[in-house]
Amino acid sequence: MSAIRIAVVGVGLIGGSVALAARERLGAEVSGYDLDPAVLAAAAARGVIAEAAGGLPAAVRDAQAVFVAVPVGVLADTVGEVLRHAGGDCVVSDVGSTKREIVATHDDPRFVGGHPLTGAETAGVEHARAGLFEGATWYLTPSEHTSGMLYERLHRLLHGLGARPCAIDPAAHDRILAAVSHLPHVFANVLVGQASSGPEREGELLPATGPSFRDATRVAGAPSSVWADIYLSNSDALIGEIDRAVEHLTEVRRALAEEDRDAIVAWNEAAAADRRRLLERGLAGGPLVELRAAVPNRPGVVAQLALELGRAGVNIADMALYPAPDMSAGVVALWVASQRDAERGLELVTRLGFPVARA
Amino acid sequence: MSAIRIAVVGVGLIGGSVALAARERLGAEVSGYDLDPAVLAAAAARGVIAEAAGGLPAAVRDAQAVFVAVPVGVLADTVGEVLRHAGGDCVVSDVGSTKREIVATHDDPRFVGGHPLTGAETAGVEHARAGLFEGATWYLTPSEHTSGMLYERLHRLLHGLGARPCAIDPAAHDRILAAVSHLPHVFANVLVGQASSGPEREGELLPATGPSFRDATRVAGAPSSVWADIYLSNSDALIGEIDRAVEHLTEVRRALAEEDRDAIVAWNEAAAADRRRLLERGLAGGPLVELRAAVPNRPGVVAQLALELGRAGVNIADMALYPAPDMSAGVVALWVASQRDAERGLELVTRLGFPVARA
Repeated sequence: MSAIRIAVVGVGLIGGSVALAARERLGAEVSGYDLDPAVLAAAAARGVIAEAAGGLPAAVRDAQAVFVAVPVGVLADTVGEVLRHAGGDCVVSDVGSTKREIVATHDDPRFVGGHPLTGAETAGVEHARAGLFEGATWYLTPSEHTSGMLYERLHRLLHGLGARPCAIDPAAHDRILAAVSHLPHVFANVLVGQASSGPEREGELLPATGPSFRDATRVAGAPSSVWADIYLSNSDALIGEIDRAVEHLTEVRRALAEEDRDAIVAWNEAAAADRRRLLERGLAGGPLVELRAAVPNRPGVVAQLALELGRAGVNIADMALYPAPDMSAGVVALWVASQRDAERGLELVTRLGFPVARA
Repeated sequence: MSAIRIAVVGVGLIGGSVALAARERLGAEVSGYDLDPAVLAAAAARGVIAEAAGGLPAAVRDAQAVFVAVPVGVLADTVGEVLRHAGGDCVVSDVGSTKREIVATHDDPRFVGGHPLTGAETAGVEHARAGLFEGATWYLTPSEHTSGMLYERLHRLLHGLGARPCAIDPAAHDRILAAVSHLPHVFANVLVGQASSGPEREGELLPATGPSFRDATRVAGAPSSVWADIYLSNSDALIGEIDRAVEHLTEVRRALAEEDRDAIVAWNEAAAADRRRLLERGLAGGPLVELRAAVPNRPGVVAQLALELGRAGVNIADMALYPAPDMSAGVVALWVASQRDAERGLELVTRLGFPVARA
């Protein structure tokens, strides 16, 4: 079996890390392109990419998978250009932090929106590393147009990079990211602002702060070149979360003003329970269980499966597609993380009308 | 010179760590007491304290310094009991997270309010460690009643534990802590609440979250037994910070709703600048410069010096007091972190009417 050919367009932290992980972990042949010749040269010099392409068309021409890792502001156009130059059997994905716009713009069966949750690492190809995606959730937003074959290829590829792919509806993705990423960034900005202003906190009188403040504000003032676009491309969902936050703060304020200890304790205990559940959600559990479903080979079927399971909280750790010789149908193998997920998966896939069983 | 005798009342994470650091770094003789016999036995069994006292009076009787590390709710009473049983030449301090109440309650010249910024470490004596205070800011709130001799002893002791003592007015302390600690805790609670509720985030559908969310919510649902008292004992300052936060969020919401990119960028750049300044504030700079001031030996003078310098942003890294043989006056040596701080220190001490010079 020959090495998979991957192209990365935009070789910064994320693109560079995809390239490194694909080379080191999968033995992939990786070509790269970046609009900034200095970045491209740095990526080649550091061995992040094997081949610095002379242009975007050359980078993607022979690729079986293309990752577009450019800022949200130029993302839609760049994906469009990639789709024009990539082959018919090439899956194209992106790593942008919001998904509705890009998915609405490109309904090409080869395109699957994506978003790895890698945290606020330092930008730039010099910080790229093969282990960046180890254990990281990588959201995918397949649509009814998505080719099942190409979705499965992408899913397996991400699994190979060390990530945990997770299918999600683009609107749900953007609402969730508003809550778990964009609002925390806004809060971090608010916190550094308030720590820096006030009667005894101006100029050189800034307070000394402790480790929990530094944790809470690590992402404050994240690069505007990236974050202005993220905030603005998801402004409706973020506004919704800000409104909920203001309501919540108003409720806490009331309890404080009334010295309502019971309400303060109940509120704090609820937060402790929420945190525990969120942490547990992040932990993979037990040995994988394999399910096999027989599905027709038409666009959208695999995406539909992945999305239905994702919506029900069933996480697909890995997947494989085995087409019938005439390509009219196929078997999808799905590996899920628990017996509970397997039960629910069987039920959901059956309800979709596909024969399914434990392997 | 014989070993200093220290008593710790309340031997949990903080008290236990004071005991360990004092023994390991200063060779102190440490006695300990805890209302909970199981905790006291655990502290003795783990070698955190040399001697488990039979009661609070026995623990503090011969001590030269006492640290009261009990929950805010029982702090004032416990400090009162310690002051009744401690000797006349014993400095008594606490580690409570809010300072106005406790300082208003006890105007004994032997008492100095204190608060180390150690972060949200796991509670309990089993997590105590000698290095907990290494490089940590340790706020002190001396008053006009405070004995200069005892304040200096405490300051040096904390320096010996690895901390950076920093004198501050109790009201300023509580306002600053509302901004840099209590509001971040409230925000963390809000964030886990919003990540856990909403159309696609209930029950087992909780979203996968990334590392920046985990950083931002590490302190969510901190123990109610400690935090309900902290919130309620500083409710006015915290309400002020919540109100400022709501104003700030409303402003960000407006910019998002109007798609005002310039405002979003300016806001985010301001946050980046604030964060940089706060981080730089946390870094110690350059070799220490020594100042020597001649001061009368009366209560409050050393506190006044420390507070004036603290207010002006001059951090006293270390201090030493050399009393005249008849105890009527003395020389205070102050080590500050930069030439700039030295200039400002000279100016301020001169303005207070004390002869002062570089050593």
